[in-house]
Amino acid sequence: MCYDNRMEYIESLTNSRVKQWVRLHHKKDRDRTGLFLVEGEHLIQEALKADAVETIITDTASPFEFGHVIKVTGGIMKKISDNVSEVHLIAVCRQRQLSPDNDMKRVLILDGVQDPGNMGTLIRTAVSFSFDAVYCSEDCCDLYNEKTIRSTQGAMFHIPVVRCDLHDLVSGLQKDGFTVIATALDASEPMEQILPEEHMAFILGNEGQGVHKELQMQADRRLRIEMNGFESLNVAVAGGIVMYRYRI
Amino acid sequence: MCYDNRMEYIESLTNSRVKQWVRLHHKKDRDRTGLFLVEGEHLIQEALKADAVETIITDTASPFEFGHVIKVTGGIMKKISDNVSEVHLIAVCRQRQLSPDNDMKRVLILDGVQDPGNMGTLIRTAVSFSFDAVYCSEDCCDLYNEKTIRSTQGAMFHIPVVRCDLHDLVSGLQKDGFTVIATALDASEPMEQILPEEHMAFILGNEGQGVHKELQMQADRRLRIEMNGFESLNVAVAGGIVMYRYRI
Repeated sequence: MCYDNRMEYIESLTNSRVKQWVRLHHKKDRDRTGLFLVEGEHLIQEALKADAVETIITDTASPFEFGHVIKVTGGIMKKISDNVSEVHLIAVCRQRQLSPDNDMKRVLILDGVQDPGNMGTLIRTAVSFSFDAVYCSEDCCDLYNEKTIRSTQGAMFHIPVVRCDLHDLVSGLQKDGFTVIATALDASEPMEQILPEEHMAFILGNEGQGVHKELQMQADRRLRIEMNGFESLNVAVAGGIVMYRYRI
Repeated sequence: MCYDNRMEYIESLTNSRVKQWVRLHHKKDRDRTGLFLVEGEHLIQEALKADAVETIITDTASPFEFGHVIKVTGGIMKKISDNVSEVHLIAVCRQRQLSPDNDMKRVLILDGVQDPGNMGTLIRTAVSFSFDAVYCSEDCCDLYNEKTIRSTQGAMFHIPVVRCDLHDLVSGLQKDGFTVIATALDASEPMEQILPEEHMAFILGNEGQGVHKELQMQADRRLRIEMNGFESLNVAVAGGIVMYRYRI
């Protein structure tokens, strides 16, 4: 293999940049630097489309047309990677929040979703059903957690994900003409009775507790997914069923 | 606290029963013994309802009316538990496969679902929408994996989950009057066009590859979940959307 002369090469496990990259596994360091890591070809492809990549790190060769590539040893790759299986491509990405559009029609609101897998899957589903934005409460899990990123399958680069106070958000959406609908197991309105409208926002809740009672009361309607059996759905599955029904 | 005299008490980390329980984290040992472990009050409650519990292990007291309780030290609990957070109740359960009914109407078929979280969530959703059985290919992940069990939220105790050859299964179901429907991203029939029938079976595929082509062809119809955006759904979310639509 012949190396491009302009390509940086790092061999030392104690190199200061390597240490900085490893620290990006901690939320504190991601918050401080505004950076985060993304692993594997598919996710990096999505990050590149969104112009979010700062540096690509590899121990083989980069398949991308992207200028800033740093070549490292396999040992360094292993040290930086979060994954148990071998990873040959990691991108350092910039946290850049997309701005919600003025003419949004479908909004997803997450109230205390704690599991990174659920959070990522909900974002992925929101993009698949053309939702315009995802809002989440301060106590939702971190968007830049590796597990969340992996579960989004890259969808996080294509939709605004905004962390904010949900009570203010709901008031604002209601003023803007949105019908805000909270999901709840014991809600009186079965989903089939709630017809699609032009502007709708849906609140999904925490895995154990569901949507906070005050927020349920602040919503315009409360929706129940019809079930006969076990009466228990994973929040990402519930979100999928709701977003499919009200997709644009 | 006063101990029941009849209650066994184990203090030694090297006790042979403790070693046997720890080994149940390995599929090989679960297969050999026909036993598996379940952690936490909610899951044990579900296992008790299904009469699947052999022994309850605790370092505090058992809240259940169940005869065979073994008291152990906190150190032993930690050694047996798979969980990072503290666990005070573990049940050793018997693998007992429920038999599918003769008058089934809704069947879920899993073709190579690899992620324990997806597998468990699909079983949980199947029970919630009154499906009668879940069939899975030999290469689906293990039902008795801790993560699978946790994701079922106990639903696995209430529905037959059968591992078998899917080609034979599909032929058999078709003979029995089932319409067998494979899900596929590029399928020509959007879900809204496929009307509910009395006997339906749905095939969901592997996270990366989807349903095997031959199995898609063997099915009676191929179903596509309508999407405009990112064209990518997690398999448990796709399963939830399909099972909701065709629930009984």
